[in-house]
Amino acid sequence: MDAGLKTISIGMLGAGVVGSQVARLLQSDEQELSERSGALLVLKKVGVRSPGPRDGIDASMITTDLNSIVTDPEINIIIEVMGGIEPARTLILEAIKNKKSVITANKALLATHGHELFNAADAAKVDLYYEAAVAGAIPIIRSMRESLAGDQITRVMGIVNGTTNYILTKMHEEGREFAEVLKEAQALGYAEADPTSDIEGHDAAAKAALLASLAFHSTVTIDEVYCEGISNISIDDVHAAKAMNCVIKLLAIAELTVKDEISVRVHPVILPNSHPLASVRNAFNAVYVESESAGELMFYGRGAGGAPTASAILGDLVAVTRHRAYSTVGYGESDYADLDIAPVGEVKSQYYVRLHVTDKSGVLASVAQTFASEDMSIQTVRQSGMGQDAELIVITHRATEASLNACVKKLTDMAIVSKVESVIRVEGAVA
Amino acid sequence: MDAGLKTISIGMLGAGVVGSQVARLLQSDEQELSERSGALLVLKKVGVRSPGPRDGIDASMITTDLNSIVTDPEINIIIEVMGGIEPARTLILEAIKNKKSVITANKALLATHGHELFNAADAAKVDLYYEAAVAGAIPIIRSMRESLAGDQITRVMGIVNGTTNYILTKMHEEGREFAEVLKEAQALGYAEADPTSDIEGHDAAAKAALLASLAFHSTVTIDEVYCEGISNISIDDVHAAKAMNCVIKLLAIAELTVKDEISVRVHPVILPNSHPLASVRNAFNAVYVESESAGELMFYGRGAGGAPTASAILGDLVAVTRHRAYSTVGYGESDYADLDIAPVGEVKSQYYVRLHVTDKSGVLASVAQTFASEDMSIQTVRQSGMGQDAELIVITHRATEASLNACVKKLTDMAIVSKVESVIRVEGAVA
Repeated sequence: MDAGLKTISIGMLGAGVVGSQVARLLQSDEQELSERSGALLVLKKVGVRSPGPRDGIDASMITTDLNSIVTDPEINIIIEVMGGIEPARTLILEAIKNKKSVITANKALLATHGHELFNAADAAKVDLYYEAAVAGAIPIIRSMRESLAGDQITRVMGIVNGTTNYILTKMHEEGREFAEVLKEAQALGYAEADPTSDIEGHDAAAKAALLASLAFHSTVTIDEVYCEGISNISIDDVHAAKAMNCVIKLLAIAELTVKDEISVRVHPVILPNSHPLASVRNAFNAVYVESESAGELMFYGRGAGGAPTASAILGDLVAVTRHRAYSTVGYGESDYADLDIAPVGEVKSQYYVRLHVTDKSGVLASVAQTFASEDMSIQTVRQSGMGQDAELIVITHRATEASLNACVKKLTDMAIVSKVESVIRVEGAVA
Repeated sequence: MDAGLKTISIGMLGAGVVGSQVARLLQSDEQELSERSGALLVLKKVGVRSPGPRDGIDASMITTDLNSIVTDPEINIIIEVMGGIEPARTLILEAIKNKKSVITANKALLATHGHELFNAADAAKVDLYYEAAVAGAIPIIRSMRESLAGDQITRVMGIVNGTTNYILTKMHEEGREFAEVLKEAQALGYAEADPTSDIEGHDAAAKAALLASLAFHSTVTIDEVYCEGISNISIDDVHAAKAMNCVIKLLAIAELTVKDEISVRVHPVILPNSHPLASVRNAFNAVYVESESAGELMFYGRGAGGAPTASAILGDLVAVTRHRAYSTVGYGESDYADLDIAPVGEVKSQYYVRLHVTDKSGVLASVAQTFASEDMSIQTVRQSGMGQDAELIVITHRATEASLNACVKKLTDMAIVSKVESVIRVEGAVA
C-alpha cells in the first residue's frame, strides 16, 4: 500500500443485511478500493441500535451512540443503511452540518425529505449520494444524472420492486392465485411478514418519486405519487393478459405530459411480451428510459439483497472519496425545472376493463354506448362465456383517468352489468 | 441566462452524422446544458476535411485547418467525431498538450493507441472521455468505470455491433440466408457498401478491447482480441440453434480466467433464449456484465446513429465541463492491475459441432471416440438424416480451444466424416 496515500475514515449507521456486506467488502477489497479512489478507506465506527457483536465487524468499532459518529471530527464520510425516517434524517443533517459527505440507501427518507437534505448538502458543499436507494445494484441514478445530462428524458418506467415482480411472475408462469404465491414468497423470504409496503406499491412509490425528481429536474415527493398495488390482480386477469400475448407488471412510471407537467404513478400495467420490460422475471428489477436523443434505454439487474446493494454503495463511496481527494463535489440534485405534478384525473392511458354482463342481445351495444358517452373510444372487445357468466374484455384507446372513473361508475350502475371485475392500465401496442 | 456564468468554448473535429447532431443539440438545448454543467457551452469552431457549408452550422465556424482548432487558446474542450487513426491521433495529442479536455467517439483509435492517449491526458491533468465509443447511447463506460468501481467485474458480454445483430435477427426470425439479408441491410443503409469491418467482427473487436481494459484495469489493444465474424453462419446452424431453443449472436466477450488472465474475443455464440442477451433484436445493442457483488447487470439501447451517439457525447461534455468549473478531472483510465491476455488456445468454452457423416453402424461411436481422444466430453448428440446426408450435431462440455482445434482436425481426417460443417461456441445452459 502506498504510504503517502491519504486516509479517508468512514462511519456507518446500521449493520444489517446491507451494512454487514459493506463492512466485509471494505475490508476484503481494501487495495482495489484505494487504487480506484486514490485514498486509503478505513471503516472507523459502526452505529447500531441494539448493542452486541456483529459478524465481521471488530467489536471496538461498534457503538450505540449514533450521534458520536456523525459528529466525529476524524470521520469524513457517513454511510447510512439503517433505514426509516427518524433518527436517520436528523443524523444525516447533523453529518452534513459537520461537513461529512453522506451515502444513503434510504429511499423512504429521500422521497419524503429529499429536498431538505439535498439543499443542506448543497449549502455545506458535500456530496449526498444514493445509488443504492433505487433498484439496488443497477446504476440508474448515475446514468440518469450524469450520462443523460446532455439529453431530455421524456419517460421512465421501472420494475423496481422485486417482491411484486416475483409474485406476478409466478402467477403468470404457473397460473397460481395471488394469495397462494404471496404465502410461498413469505415462506421463501422474498416477501416480508407484513407485505403491505411491497404489494400495495408504497416501496415502488418512493422510488418513483426519486426517479421522477431526477428525470425532470424537479422536486417530487412520495405523497405526490398516485399508487395502486397488485393485491387486486386476479388469476383471470393474468390469463386474459396471456391470451393477448401480454404480461402484467407493477410499474413505477414518471413521464412528461403534453402540458409539461410530471405524471408520476405506480400501478399494475398490461404490457405486450415484445416490450423489453416484459421479460424481466422473478425478483429482478429493470428501468426503461425514453429520451429525446438516446431513444430507448433499459437497465437490468438485481434490485435488492446485501451484496448488490453494497456494490452500489461502494461505487458511490469511490466517487465521493475521489471528490474529497480533489476537494470538489459531484453532481448535486437539481430542481431548476420545477415542474408541476399533473392531476391524476388528467393522465391518459389505455385501459383494460373486464366485466361480467347478462348475455342478452344488445348488451355489447349498450356497453359500447356507455364508453362512448365518456369519450372513451374502444379498440377491441372480446366476449366469452354465456348466460350469467358472460364476460366482456374491453381494451380502450387512450383516455383520461377522469373519463375512466366516470365510465366505470356508469357501467356499475347498469342493470345488464353484474360486475366490473377489474380495470388495468395498458402500455405499448397491445393488439 | 445567468450573466455571471463562465463560458466554455468547444471545438469539434468532424461534422458528419454524429457531429451535425452534436452541433444541433448544443445550440437547441443551450439553457438546459448550462443549468446542468454550470457553464455556458459555446460551439466555436468546427473542423472539416472538405470545405463547404454544413446544415445547422454557421459558416463562420467552419474551417479545414484542423490544427488551428486544437491549438486555439480560447477553446477549452475538443469533441472528436472525425474517426480514423490519423490525423485524429495527432490532433488529440496536440489538444491534450494544449491542456484541452477531449471527448471522442473513436473506438478504433482508442483500441489501438489508447494507452498513449490516456497517459498523455493523465500527465496533462485533462479529461479524455469516450462514452460514445462503445454501444452508442448506452452508458456502459461510466457504469463500468464509476458505478462498479467498488465491485469486481468477472465477465462482460456484449452485443456491440448493430449491423451483425440485425442480420442475425433476420436470419433467425425469417429463416433467410446470410448473403440475402446482408444485401437487404445494405439497401436499407444498415450495412455499409464494404461491410467487412462489421461482419468480420473488427468493429466489435475494438469495443471488446475497450471493455476489457475498463473491466480489468489493464491495457488491452485490438490486436489482442481473438476475432471471428458471422459470414460463415449458415441458415442450417440458425435452424439447429432454434431447435435447441437458442439463438446465435455475435458477442464481444471479456472475462477473467481461473489464472487471472484476461480472455478477450469476438465470435458468434449460441445462447439459450432464456439469456437476457437473447432477446436483443435488430440493430439494438446490449452489454451484460457479471460482477462479484452486483451479480448480473444488463444495459440495453441504441448502439449507433447520430442522435443516440450525440446523447453520449453531450453527457460526457456536461461531466467534463463540470470538472473544468471545479478545476478537477474525472476518473482516469486505470491499468494498475496490468493483467496478461490468456492465449486463445487455453480459453475454455462449450462447443456446437455440426458434421456430415456416412450413415454406417458405429459412426457415432467412432466420432465420440475422437472427441474423447482430445479430452472433449460430449453433453448431447443429435443425429438426423440418412445415407450420405446423415448429420451429427454435437454439444460438448467445456474444453479448451486447443482441444477443439485438434479434435476438428482429427474429425476432418476421418473417412466416415464427409465434412465438419461448422463449429460455434456455446454460452449458458443449453439443453
